[in-house]
Amino acid sequence: MGLSELTLGQYQTVYNALSFVIASFLGALTYFILTRNEVSPKYRSAATIASVIMVIAGYHYFRIMNSWTEAFKPENNLYHPTGLYFNSSYRYIDWLLTVPLLAAELAIVTCSDRARSVSSLAKYTIAAGLMIVLGLVGELSTDSTQRTIWAVLSTIPFIYLLVSLWIEIGKNLPNIPESARRSASNLRYLLVATWGVYPIVYMFPDLKLTSANWFVAGQVGFCTADVFAKALFSLIIHWIAVARSRAEGFKAA
Amino acid sequence: MGLSELTLGQYQTVYNALSFVIASFLGALTYFILTRNEVSPKYRSAATIASVIMVIAGYHYFRIMNSWTEAFKPENNLYHPTGLYFNSSYRYIDWLLTVPLLAAELAIVTCSDRARSVSSLAKYTIAAGLMIVLGLVGELSTDSTQRTIWAVLSTIPFIYLLVSLWIEIGKNLPNIPESARRSASNLRYLLVATWGVYPIVYMFPDLKLTSANWFVAGQVGFCTADVFAKALFSLIIHWIAVARSRAEGFKAA
Repeated sequence: MGLSELTLGQYQTVYNALSFVIASFLGALTYFILTRNEVSPKYRSAATIASVIMVIAGYHYFRIMNSWTEAFKPENNLYHPTGLYFNSSYRYIDWLLTVPLLAAELAIVTCSDRARSVSSLAKYTIAAGLMIVLGLVGELSTDSTQRTIWAVLSTIPFIYLLVSLWIEIGKNLPNIPESARRSASNLRYLLVATWGVYPIVYMFPDLKLTSANWFVAGQVGFCTADVFAKALFSLIIHWIAVARSRAEGFKAA
Repeated sequence: MGLSELTLGQYQTVYNALSFVIASFLGALTYFILTRNEVSPKYRSAATIASVIMVIAGYHYFRIMNSWTEAFKPENNLYHPTGLYFNSSYRYIDWLLTVPLLAAELAIVTCSDRARSVSSLAKYTIAAGLMIVLGLVGELSTDSTQRTIWAVLSTIPFIYLLVSLWIEIGKNLPNIPESARRSASNLRYLLVATWGVYPIVYMFPDLKLTSANWFVAGQVGFCTADVFAKALFSLIIHWIAVARSRAEGFKAA
């Protein structure tokens, strides 16, 4: 899909949204590194993984930002496509790495049983890989029927993942200390609300929502979803890990 | 070998594969730095070396990425060679540094006897140096007969290294605690599967596999092999180090 001309406001909106994501990830990374020791060794790898996710996702947003600035040049108060491709497939590459990591973080902090968390993690990783590769093939195909077929196929592991994670969190709520149970329960709604953005934006072209405004809305949607699904999601998991550590008698040095 | 014109899809595939490698190395680097203290002092230098490998290999991939974007320019939906050389010999320079480091990491974590691990390390470093220099001379030679002769010569230290590392890991399996023995045993298959990619891609021109699609496949093959042979390999070694540390009574602060 070619890019259309953008007004200064449209161009800046995407630019600022991308920058907002980078700032959020850098801030969250700093927080996770500095507070890692407040989590007991049992759950500490979740804080480590949270930092890893912030680095990987932050790196990708720097790339997306560069791709954005190279894709347009200003002339007569309008931003014209330069012909250089705006690479949104970075997002797929990012998910390939970060979705299994987010599932791992969740499993480490909510599960009671290590062996079971490893086996379900393997399933999630395969489902995430399928979901992303199928979605990417659809995203890159120019034919609209093919695009839809791949999208439908990609939705199967997507739904599987969402439902499994929802059930997983619910089943583990009793393990979580009272002080963090509400946050853990809310994680499920956060998951559905943020993950839901991706298929909706994916469908924009099929719904003939192809104007510049819809394109900008889609990019802002992705950015917002990424801040909530990665930074906020990891923050909540981190707070649960701190609460469990304290409830089990761990005292930070 | 000159570069041919690429479609957007071909160009992007290599681009995304290169970016995927950078993201993986940055993520793994973060992980190794943050979890270094979970390894007992006896094995800790393996975690240090893992971080060093990620920095060196990540740096080289930034260079390869820059070389890739400079080697092509888009025009009429095709990516045309700009005439600037796509420098894939960075990979050889990278191996010159990282292959001995990977062998060192392995020796530190799997061996029981320090003196023996230093002496075998010296042998591996010499073999790795020979393998890489001979391969690079072949890669840079324009004559196809010469290319093949150097390739065959380079294969001798290559096989020596693979066989020695395979035997080394097998011999040290009894030192490794039960919880990590399976991973350690799998390291051997990972080694063969990932190292095997390099001679296969090297042979593409000799097998007349010179189309743009084969070129892209070769680059993706190198990228995948590097993520598995460096980041995943180091991660498994790190987990073995953590398991040995715990089995020997070490407790992270």
